[in-house]
Amino acid sequence: MRATVIHGAGDVRVETVPDPVIREPTDAVVRVLRACICGTDLWPYRSMPASEPASRIGHEFIGVVEETGSDVSGLRRGDLVVAPYMFEDNTCDFCVEGLTSSCRHGGMWASDGFDGAQGEAVRVPQAQGTLIKLPVGPDSALLPSLLTLSDVFPTGHHAAVTAGVGPRTQVTVIGDGAVGVLAVLAARRLGAERIILMGRHPERTSLGRAFGATDVVADRGQQGVEVVRELTGGDGTHAVLECVGLRPAIEMAFGVVRDGGVVSRVGGPQYDEVPVDFRMWTRNITLTGGFTPARAYIDELLPDVLDGKVEPGRVFDRTVDLSDVSDGYRAMADREALKVLVVP
Amino acid sequence: MRATVIHGAGDVRVETVPDPVIREPTDAVVRVLRACICGTDLWPYRSMPASEPASRIGHEFIGVVEETGSDVSGLRRGDLVVAPYMFEDNTCDFCVEGLTSSCRHGGMWASDGFDGAQGEAVRVPQAQGTLIKLPVGPDSALLPSLLTLSDVFPTGHHAAVTAGVGPRTQVTVIGDGAVGVLAVLAARRLGAERIILMGRHPERTSLGRAFGATDVVADRGQQGVEVVRELTGGDGTHAVLECVGLRPAIEMAFGVVRDGGVVSRVGGPQYDEVPVDFRMWTRNITLTGGFTPARAYIDELLPDVLDGKVEPGRVFDRTVDLSDVSDGYRAMADREALKVLVVP
Repeated sequence: MRATVIHGAGDVRVETVPDPVIREPTDAVVRVLRACICGTDLWPYRSMPASEPASRIGHEFIGVVEETGSDVSGLRRGDLVVAPYMFEDNTCDFCVEGLTSSCRHGGMWASDGFDGAQGEAVRVPQAQGTLIKLPVGPDSALLPSLLTLSDVFPTGHHAAVTAGVGPRTQVTVIGDGAVGVLAVLAARRLGAERIILMGRHPERTSLGRAFGATDVVADRGQQGVEVVRELTGGDGTHAVLECVGLRPAIEMAFGVVRDGGVVSRVGGPQYDEVPVDFRMWTRNITLTGGFTPARAYIDELLPDVLDGKVEPGRVFDRTVDLSDVSDGYRAMADREALKVLVVP
Repeated sequence: MRATVIHGAGDVRVETVPDPVIREPTDAVVRVLRACICGTDLWPYRSMPASEPASRIGHEFIGVVEETGSDVSGLRRGDLVVAPYMFEDNTCDFCVEGLTSSCRHGGMWASDGFDGAQGEAVRVPQAQGTLIKLPVGPDSALLPSLLTLSDVFPTGHHAAVTAGVGPRTQVTVIGDGAVGVLAVLAARRLGAERIILMGRHPERTSLGRAFGATDVVADRGQQGVEVVRELTGGDGTHAVLECVGLRPAIEMAFGVVRDGGVVSRVGGPQYDEVPVDFRMWTRNITLTGGFTPARAYIDELLPDVLDGKVEPGRVFDRTVDLSDVSDGYRAMADREALKVLVVP
């Protein structure tokens, strides 16, 4: 079969790799119907040294079950399924608490010898805990939106949930990438009354407005902080969803959060320390967020996707065949595309 | 009247100062019955440059109302009252939300020209919002416990509340100062099933055990982290109450917190940054806490003090007359005393 392999920065290839087979009785083999490229896939695409061993890549997919191990029940050949961006048993104490991202038997696609998702097929460990059956056919128009359940929509939702967004909450979303605009959608879905989106790419902030943003602030840094404060009577907002992961973004987050408010960060942090000094302490600011327990959220989000109440799949503004996946990487890295869907 | 004035590091004096008078219609004048020394009073006692202007000091007191301004209702001469460590109107939007520490008309004792509490009397701004009437007489044996409602007991409670402590929660409390042992008491009161107290002063950890600590860990740093992890099956605890405010303490906090858990800091941070890196993010660790909205908690805590269900006043292990207040500072600074009660 063919799959995407990254060899180093800027060097993504489609290569022939061994077909996946059942190794553990808890495994399944899934033929990939749709995959996509994540902002975190761009990290190695931008910086991976060529001296590192080449690696499969990708962690978001929808597919069709081809085979299941002897311990897997509830799934059978032909089932259409979505997989979260991590696999998990969904039965350990962390999973039961809803923190599937800390599953005691979980792990990441495309690491430690596990398959990456940007290919024709995937061996799925802990298949029964990981895979969620979807009541649609392989030609459903909902596939793009359903694919966002792997990672990016639950990630926006995680930001909103951990920040305590609910009816009447005022929210600032930092970042107009796919996570940011879906954090807008998630906050709107949870009833936020006002959602200020900080971003400076008009086509992305337009999507953010379509998803529910009430205000867009293109300014950044201290200027951006001042504009948000002006919009909110000087106070900032209760909830701030930091969807970037860079130090200037988290600094802006602390600048626009209201006393007693919450900064939730779902952009993977590319910094080691956070400026939460004495003054931030006097203001009772909470910092939360983290790896999204996507598996735990899918049951809640799936019905709204199936009903068409939300259309998170609108984040896909480009589709490439697997053979053109490197074009997809380039387009996302150059910010030509917001998020790229891959069809094996 | 006489009051405590700090002139610089190690230089605390009792001096004659002007008698307080009503300046605003929202003021009251309160004769102080009991005051006490806080760990934060030791900050200037340890480091205040002699070149700075001398200042009244102290922010915790119980007293008797002597006079009220024309806009103050519900209080009259002779009422026994406790004051939180900040004054507040208790009507603004922050106060209504329970964040009295961010009151739009609030402020701190002993700063910006407001009186300090370690003296014979105090002008109380925003008296109606600030002062809480106590249904006891001036000779009540409950005065020490009632005095802790000013600051130190609500502060322990704030740590426990913001960390989400409830029945079945496992808790680590870092620090065996007055705030730490009262954080133990607060966690126990909220139903925590297991409370690990990290401290190395046997007389203080003994009080912590009396307040509900189930385990005491004297080790610090990485060794302390490992001991707590061993005690908790390798996982750490859901809630970590950081009651010190120094960088090594917050680092320990992140070391002993369980995935998905909460570090609440109520020790005033004497650092500017916190190490919440990518790994801490993958573990979904929340950092919360801050200035305690003491006023907002007193209504909840007062009945248990009056009933004798809790005895937070046990933190006072020394009492001094106002004229000996400098001895009290020295005893606390030298760790001879846990917390010193001052009788004007």
